[in-house]
Amino acid sequence: MSFLGKNYLIRSHNGMKIFNAIKDLPIIDPHNHANVKEIAANRNYSDVWQLFAATDHYVWETLRKRGVDEEYITGNKSSRDKWLKLASVFPELIGNPVYEWLHLDLQRYLGVKHLIGPDTGELIWEEANAALAAPKRRPQALLKTIGVEAMCSTDDPIDLLEEHAEANRQIGRTLVRPTWRPDKAMNISAPGWREYMTKVAERFNITLNSVSDLIRAMRMSHDYFAANNCVASDHGVEVAPDITANVSDADAGFKKALKGKVLQPNEIAAFKGYFFAKIASFNAEKDWVFQLHLGAVRDVRDSLWETLGADSGGDICDHFQDHLSPLKYFLNRFDGRLKVVLYCLDPGHQPLLATLSRAFGEKVRLGSAWWLCDHPIGMRRQLEYIGAVDVLANFAGMVSDSRKLLSYGSRFEMFRRVLADVLGEMADNGQAPLSPLQDLAITMAYRGPKRFFNL
Amino acid sequence: MSFLGKNYLIRSHNGMKIFNAIKDLPIIDPHNHANVKEIAANRNYSDVWQLFAATDHYVWETLRKRGVDEEYITGNKSSRDKWLKLASVFPELIGNPVYEWLHLDLQRYLGVKHLIGPDTGELIWEEANAALAAPKRRPQALLKTIGVEAMCSTDDPIDLLEEHAEANRQIGRTLVRPTWRPDKAMNISAPGWREYMTKVAERFNITLNSVSDLIRAMRMSHDYFAANNCVASDHGVEVAPDITANVSDADAGFKKALKGKVLQPNEIAAFKGYFFAKIASFNAEKDWVFQLHLGAVRDVRDSLWETLGADSGGDICDHFQDHLSPLKYFLNRFDGRLKVVLYCLDPGHQPLLATLSRAFGEKVRLGSAWWLCDHPIGMRRQLEYIGAVDVLANFAGMVSDSRKLLSYGSRFEMFRRVLADVLGEMADNGQAPLSPLQDLAITMAYRGPKRFFNL
Amino acid sequence: MSFLGKNYLIRSHNGMKIFNAIKDLPIIDPHNHANVKEIAANRNYSDVWQLFAATDHYVWETLRKRGVDEEYITGNKSSRDKWLKLASVFPELIGNPVYEWLHLDLQRYLGVKHLIGPDTGELIWEEANAALAAPKRRPQALLKTIGVEAMCSTDDPIDLLEEHAEANRQIGRTLVRPTWRPDKAMNISAPGWREYMTKVAERFNITLNSVSDLIRAMRMSHDYFAANNCVASDHGVEVAPDITANVSDADAGFKKALKGKVLQPNEIAAFKGYFFAKIASFNAEKDWVFQLHLGAVRDVRDSLWETLGADSGGDICDHFQDHLSPLKYFLNRFDGRLKVVLYCLDPGHQPLLATLSRAFGEKVRLGSAWWLCDHPIGMRRQLEYIGAVDVLANFAGMVSDSRKLLSYGSRFEMFRRVLADVLGEMADNGQAPLSPLQDLAITMAYRGPKRFFNL
Repeated sequence: MSFLGKNYLIRSHNGMKIFNAIKDLPIIDPHNHANVKEIAANRNYSDVWQLFAATDHYVWETLRKRGVDEEYITGNKSSRDKWLKLASVFPELIGNPVYEWLHLDLQRYLGVKHLIGPDTGELIWEEANAALAAPKRRPQALLKTIGVEAMCSTDDPIDLLEEHAEANRQIGRTLVRPTWRPDKAMNISAPGWREYMTKVAERFNITLNSVSDLIRAMRMSHDYFAANNCVASDHGVEVAPDITANVSDADAGFKKALKGKVLQPNEIAAFKGYFFAKIASFNAEKDWVFQLHLGAVRDVRDSLWETLGADSGGDICDHFQDHLSPLKYFLNRFDGRLKVVLYCLDPGHQPLLATLSRAFGEKVRLGSAWWLCDHPIGMRRQLEYIGAVDVLANFAGMVSDSRKLLSYGSRFEMFRRVLADVLGEMADNGQAPLSPLQDLAITMAYRGPKRFFNL
Repeated sequence: MSFLGKNYLIRSHNGMKIFNAIKDLPIIDPHNHANVKEIAANRNYSDVWQLFAATDHYVWETLRKRGVDEEYITGNKSSRDKWLKLASVFPELIGNPVYEWLHLDLQRYLGVKHLIGPDTGELIWEEANAALAAPKRRPQALLKTIGVEAMCSTDDPIDLLEEHAEANRQIGRTLVRPTWRPDKAMNISAPGWREYMTKVAERFNITLNSVSDLIRAMRMSHDYFAANNCVASDHGVEVAPDITANVSDADAGFKKALKGKVLQPNEIAAFKGYFFAKIASFNAEKDWVFQLHLGAVRDVRDSLWETLGADSGGDICDHFQDHLSPLKYFLNRFDGRLKVVLYCLDPGHQPLLATLSRAFGEKVRLGSAWWLCDHPIGMRRQLEYIGAVDVLANFAGMVSDSRKLLSYGSRFEMFRRVLADVLGEMADNGQAPLSPLQDLAITMAYRGPKRFFNL
Repeated sequence: MSFLGKNYLIRSHNGMKIFNAIKDLPIIDPHNHANVKEIAANRNYSDVWQLFAATDHYVWETLRKRGVDEEYITGNKSSRDKWLKLASVFPELIGNPVYEWLHLDLQRYLGVKHLIGPDTGELIWEEANAALAAPKRRPQALLKTIGVEAMCSTDDPIDLLEEHAEANRQIGRTLVRPTWRPDKAMNISAPGWREYMTKVAERFNITLNSVSDLIRAMRMSHDYFAANNCVASDHGVEVAPDITANVSDADAGFKKALKGKVLQPNEIAAFKGYFFAKIASFNAEKDWVFQLHLGAVRDVRDSLWETLGADSGGDICDHFQDHLSPLKYFLNRFDGRLKVVLYCLDPGHQPLLATLSRAFGEKVRLGSAWWLCDHPIGMRRQLEYIGAVDVLANFAGMVSDSRKLLSYGSRFEMFRRVLADVLGEMADNGQAPLSPLQDLAITMAYRGPKRFFNL
């Protein structure tokens, strides 16, 4: 089989028949980190490094593993030098999805067929940059080429969402939606939280004297987002907060933190738990989806954190986390009235989350293989397992989770191929007939998420 | 390959050759939840919902995931209405083993070949019910059709086992055996424990003044079960109790609980640990198998628990459990003199349990992929892994774990096909010759469990 | 496919093409438990039991599982009786890698093609022993046949390494290198530690009054090993020590232990943490690799431990271990200046370790599937997963970890075949072109480890 060819990732005729039923469906991407400003501005990309690697810590981490110096990754070298350095080690990245993604981006969307390597770096630099200069490679045109029907970026509650409005105005329909992500407000013990509170107060013209004031501001933001096409919130936590906390403990912690004092772990927990339950109740009222990204231990590599800050690498998963205790309270409190998506980072947590999803009925769903699991083997193992324990038709759907626009194409293609292959194997094995498997694939790839997220 | 056809779940010629060596072997099912009364009464089943779904929370959970209202699951709707509702969503359950099991039941034992779906619900209702009305579809005839040689139901120590005797009398040999499951006596902190103690006292005509009295009653029950063809006990625990507890602490807890007082965690633990070790020693004396079902966290969904009680759904697994600490004491205490089967619920615990099995020699064995792992991918992954760490020939054998009589056929067929496929792959890979693999398959599917359980 | 035939473990043409690119590369084995005395003495092996089983607790554990009496395993029976007993149950070991390894040893290196079984035990005893008597079956000749270019045994800091020197002198080049394994010095609470301290004092002619004296002795040993071709240390721990300990706490514990007093857990931890960090800094200075074997819980079966002591069986893995807390400190402290190999025992820890490897850049690498994971399915699952999360080209390489000389051949063959199969599948799936996959295979099988370990 040829590299990224027609049968890429698909091992049987049944798999191809299923893939053919889904490959041209529009893209629904309910969670990504789109640069909406870039879409609204709709300017051509300057060069292939900017588009492929400049904002992508997935790429950065693999380059570091191959000994590339930081000045060629996040440092001061030119885009061209960085690209050539990337090309020089790129064949050594085989196995990591970055190798497939960048080649998919090149082949499928820029029409460049060369393998990235030390001998082709310059050539690709020329050809890809030339391709990027064409009008059809501007962000809005690319979204059309990729077939994006709806996508949800990730946004801060104080964001005015003006770029979303502008992008949709230019495009002529509601393509780009925001997602409400109040992590900054909840992370009461993080550096910068007080400064952020000041901004919240300004944004909503409210004095923050108590936790109830903050909840009121959040409510205003939540309403504002709803009026601006938002259908979901998103939350990143190592483990879910314990929502049995009461308002007076939360308020005490809030007031103490506002004064700049250091909180004790139980004070932090009380605030977070109370806050978390409150905003979940907002979602329940509006029938928004509550997206929960569980398990990421961030910034464990001090040398990166100290020089580059967050979202630059050094993030890991950890099996040794107690997710059940807090989730049990949370899922019971909102049972039957809150749509929840559970995203799993450590594969060892998948059985807990899948059986919780199974236990809590229609509204609780498993999200796609996330981040460090977002590759063919991670997606395959997840789909095989959750199908057997949970119900595949309830899958919350693929999300790109990406900062990079072309990922809405290449990551979805990878997912749809793996999905087709897994379901095709079920047909091969005589576990289900082909026709309802094709129908299931359409549900999982398009209809299901569209309905669940109200898109 | 056709749905559930000749090659169902088997991918190679070697796999088929292995399957042919085991497919017609009698069924040994050392752990199920048979309704023995139903077997003794030997009446035709009223309808296909009663047989397939009315007692099966595996089915219930999948229907809930697809948004079926509870009145069509455990509620007051008629069997016909419930069946038609099930049929209306059934194609959406593809991937979950329920989809395969019910079709296997229909095709293999009722001769109904239609796919269950919204357009065939009525037709199947008619055809399957007509099939069920035939004399050859009565419980005892079905057991013969399925080829059950021996099976062990799950019974309470105060049970008189009269239905077991009656069923065997009618069948003309010892087909149905009881399993001694004293969980109710051990769960000292559960609602209803005191009432249960009253029943124990009555059953064995004994006054329960101390924990030793209870142990004496348990001993009488254990002897009674032994005289009634029992060969094994069964125990369901989140984690095994700590058996280092002493009799005086256990007795203090017992007396306090008898008075209706609430026990502290350490008091509960002392009682359970002492009780557990005592009954294990009974098994050791009689060479019974001690079956240990580890890891199930039950009834986490309050809304189900409050309305429907136990065994109605809402059960999960959890990676974050310390199984080693208590098992180390337990397995050492009874090393070399107690036959133990370890059933694993969370796949993440499999390596610990498999290496413990490896470490503790011939008498400690791994049970088949249990409950939330009882599906083709769960069985496959378990067999692949435990074969490599432990020794496949020591596998404790498949059990249906089912309340449903037809499951003794369909679940065993699924297992034997997966087993044949896994071993066939070893032949394909040149890891072992075909002939000893066929022999190993016979050991795993029949000879081994028969010998280990003394059946 | 024939048993252990040309295509053994390899399922596709691409896999064979990759295997052909690596099968004849020299063996680099940076971690084993070679009996260097045996190599230096270079005498013929007395018999096949001695070579295959007498020192191998992998074999012992499988025999115990099949009910073989200990007198035929580690007891007083003759080698011949032991071998015949092994043969009588050997077909029952199918699935366990021991079945494949022993047949590989026989076929590939002794030219004996019979299947081991009850009917062939005597025949193989005769033929294999005759083969072993030939000059070409002496240790040094076998190392040449196998193609070992470099190997690292595991040695105690007080070892004089005279046999290494003698073996290399005879061979005419530096083939056998030592590895510095100071576990005995670190295990301050283990029986025999004080006696061991006496030996350390004698060996380095130093009085041990404080922990600094011990560190000084270790430094002398480290230097001595370096002068004798050592390139790596090795450390076996359940979880890594907490290196935040300070010197005064470590010293207090050291002095207390020297007096024969029992240490508290915090005192043990302080000593171990300080010691661990100190020796890691030695490695950093010399650019040695720091090999960390994580997670083994040893000697859990009391009956074995009490009669046979360490390394006789009864060792397990356990999911419920917190590896992140101590590793976070350790990897940050030595970030960028220490080459580390992480060996994972419980498959559930692999995601943590793989993402840590990903996070900490070029110098931190994952070791090959270790011990209870060292079999085709363990290697396959590890390679599939770490490729997707980490970078395959950074793999630390296969090690035999074996006491048995033929394992340097048979275990490496198994690894190379699995590697070829996994990478071949990537070619089949269109995930990468064949040619760079062949190149990657060469890097993973030979070039990479050679460079990383400075061999």
